[in-house]
Amino acid sequence: MAPLKSWLSIPQDSHFSLANLPFGIITSKNSQTEKRPAVAIGELVLDLQAFAHGDGFSSLPSLKDHLSVFSQPTLNAFAALGQPIHREVRTYLQNILSDTTTHPQILKDNVSLQKTALLPKHETKTHLPMQIGDYTDFYAGENHAFNAGCLFRGPANALQPNYFHIPIGYHGRASTVVVSGTPIRRPNGQLLLDSTADPKIPTFGPSRRLDIELELGCLLCKANPMGEPVPIEEAEQAIFGFVLMNDWSARDIQAWEYVPLGPFNGKNFGTTISPWVVLFDALDHFRVEKLKNETKLLPYLEEGRPDTVYDINLEVDLTTPGPEGSTTTISRGSGRNLVWSFAQMIAHHSVGGCAMQPGDLLGSGTISTKDDSGLGSLLEMSAGGKKEIMLAGMDVRKFLKDGDTITIRGVCGGEPGALVGFGECVGTIESAIVFS
Amino acid sequence: MAPLKSWLSIPQDSHFSLANLPFGIITSKNSQTEKRPAVAIGELVLDLQAFAHGDGFSSLPSLKDHLSVFSQPTLNAFAALGQPIHREVRTYLQNILSDTTTHPQILKDNVSLQKTALLPKHETKTHLPMQIGDYTDFYAGENHAFNAGCLFRGPANALQPNYFHIPIGYHGRASTVVVSGTPIRRPNGQLLLDSTADPKIPTFGPSRRLDIELELGCLLCKANPMGEPVPIEEAEQAIFGFVLMNDWSARDIQAWEYVPLGPFNGKNFGTTISPWVVLFDALDHFRVEKLKNETKLLPYLEEGRPDTVYDINLEVDLTTPGPEGSTTTISRGSGRNLVWSFAQMIAHHSVGGCAMQPGDLLGSGTISTKDDSGLGSLLEMSAGGKKEIMLAGMDVRKFLKDGDTITIRGVCGGEPGALVGFGECVGTIESAIVFS
Repeated sequence: MAPLKSWLSIPQDSHFSLANLPFGIITSKNSQTEKRPAVAIGELVLDLQAFAHGDGFSSLPSLKDHLSVFSQPTLNAFAALGQPIHREVRTYLQNILSDTTTHPQILKDNVSLQKTALLPKHETKTHLPMQIGDYTDFYAGENHAFNAGCLFRGPANALQPNYFHIPIGYHGRASTVVVSGTPIRRPNGQLLLDSTADPKIPTFGPSRRLDIELELGCLLCKANPMGEPVPIEEAEQAIFGFVLMNDWSARDIQAWEYVPLGPFNGKNFGTTISPWVVLFDALDHFRVEKLKNETKLLPYLEEGRPDTVYDINLEVDLTTPGPEGSTTTISRGSGRNLVWSFAQMIAHHSVGGCAMQPGDLLGSGTISTKDDSGLGSLLEMSAGGKKEIMLAGMDVRKFLKDGDTITIRGVCGGEPGALVGFGECVGTIESAIVFS
Repeated sequence: MAPLKSWLSIPQDSHFSLANLPFGIITSKNSQTEKRPAVAIGELVLDLQAFAHGDGFSSLPSLKDHLSVFSQPTLNAFAALGQPIHREVRTYLQNILSDTTTHPQILKDNVSLQKTALLPKHETKTHLPMQIGDYTDFYAGENHAFNAGCLFRGPANALQPNYFHIPIGYHGRASTVVVSGTPIRRPNGQLLLDSTADPKIPTFGPSRRLDIELELGCLLCKANPMGEPVPIEEAEQAIFGFVLMNDWSARDIQAWEYVPLGPFNGKNFGTTISPWVVLFDALDHFRVEKLKNETKLLPYLEEGRPDTVYDINLEVDLTTPGPEGSTTTISRGSGRNLVWSFAQMIAHHSVGGCAMQPGDLLGSGTISTKDDSGLGSLLEMSAGGKKEIMLAGMDVRKFLKDGDTITIRGVCGGEPGALVGFGECVGTIESAIVFS
């Protein structure tokens, strides 16, 4: 199938082809305080508030009563309209932006609306796309779970007995989920510098083992009332779309605090997501099978199809600071390295009656390849801090230094002009606060 | 000091004496959909929206620009005004309601405003007092932590090496925090019926070990930006007030799921809080010293005073269902049984830079006495399900049965007419959903 062509000029290598049309929240040079929804298309963004005000949706009557969702500072209201409406709107916008549009009067031939609604991306700023009610981080990246388990407990006990029965997850901190580009301050905390000492006495200071976690984030669009589980066959309908995610982790803080109730300050200082939400439908062409799980699943987790994860090419760059700084791609992996799908995570999360809401964020867990080419954390790349990760310019790292920038990219498909990508998820480390 | 006297008739044993004045959110018989702030006083509630509309705050000029906070469906906006304003408003209302009020024209002699603003409590309904952004549950009840640790690991290893260094906590689920009176459905989930089997194969079904956790909840009123810790000496200023909390727990689901990332579905099906927020100031007279911690604390956790927990008499009733049902008080404890204060929890929670917000809920962790008189969970009362808890009417329990009602009460002070109490935190267990 030839790629959809637009009357706009879209670079062939753009993540935001006409096949994508991801949704985000912007402000612009001309309207710096009013956050509003937009769609990314090539090097432009379509301001949906301006588009709606300019009668852009006049040929989509079913949306008539819902246009206020495009005057909101988050995508929550649009998401809550449900997948059938997202589908209609995205298909409609693909038509409007296509060179064979059946509604040329709406935008293609409407220079005045083009001027108000089509903005150069570099004149806009992106913001957190949704108000996140609750954030849950899963652990579905089997290779990462195995690698991390080996470092802590050895290969024989790397994965717990529950691992292949349950999509293991924990509640994260919603208040510190931030949009790409937000600086991340190195956390201070309790560190056990000598774990063999008896008694164990922690010291206080900046984390010395500051790490990344390469994840896929899933944003929800559907609520289930408390006490009413989401059946597995309906779970995909609760998915609004996907973002890249970096679940920054302070390994030393985490190691001392996490028994018996799980990660806390080792994680809650910041989680970065990419700004453009790639809608559920946009990834449909890139479904692949999950990692094989030989375990017989309980029925509430059994999916009707095996291809419920996505073939997303993932890359992680580490850029060192300063004028001499260099950029090295330290990981090249794929979104297919998950043993649980988001539908299974949703079914499990709600099976006891937990209420989910539009704007909830689910993290996949760290995504690593089986070999060393696409590991999702520095912990794995440095074998627990035992070996150095080689960077360009003769530099090395075990964990992050102040000023380091991490850039995650993710893109599906290889056909020029038809890429479905996430853009970038970026964060730079600021030095820790000095306690007096 | 003689108790403050009101021109209203307040029962001597009321939790809501003039010394208290807790804040909540109500609807009423006459206005069933409009949620708005109110204050509980004896058997009445003062509707703050009606009071403000009727110029009730006209003698408190500093509040003039903030009256819209009383037309909100949650207390978040009022809380965000900060402790000095809460103090002014509560002191002002104590004056207005006192029999020696200096502003009798406001309410005491204003029969018309009394009619619109003073409502019989039984004609009102309470709702969740705040929109809860993030909910964190701590583990500061040393006796409970020890008892639970003994059941799982024996007395020698009951408490982890980090326990006396860190106020251990984990992120909970905000979407299922509900107000007293909301039914709690027994969760289904994965259960490992035979934990000695190899391999370990879970079954699916309703939790058989459904439990309570008696806790104190702390609601926050102050935000700190991401990356900027709250110093311990300022941490109490972030406290809006306190509620009773029942952190319902499915012990069997929790036992199978919780390694390595902590409790998840074993907890997230429901957490009940009492509806009336007892303000920070109202508890000031009831400060007592925390449980002794022999460990040298890191400076960021060192408090300037030792009396940072509260002498709250706590009781738990279990009421069995049906016409033959009986009520037994199964626990009589005290809020003093904490080894960490909420100020320490806030300082620790934010020390790595985690952003806190008005409306965040912190749970103390289960509060148990050292002896068996005031245990905070059935797990402890039944010694891990090994012995029966005796109830009135020859009935017994190890864990909760369908239809059981748990009522938690908490009250400070013993002087008639001057009690500062929380009222009740109630929940009844509904039977689990039947999966086909």
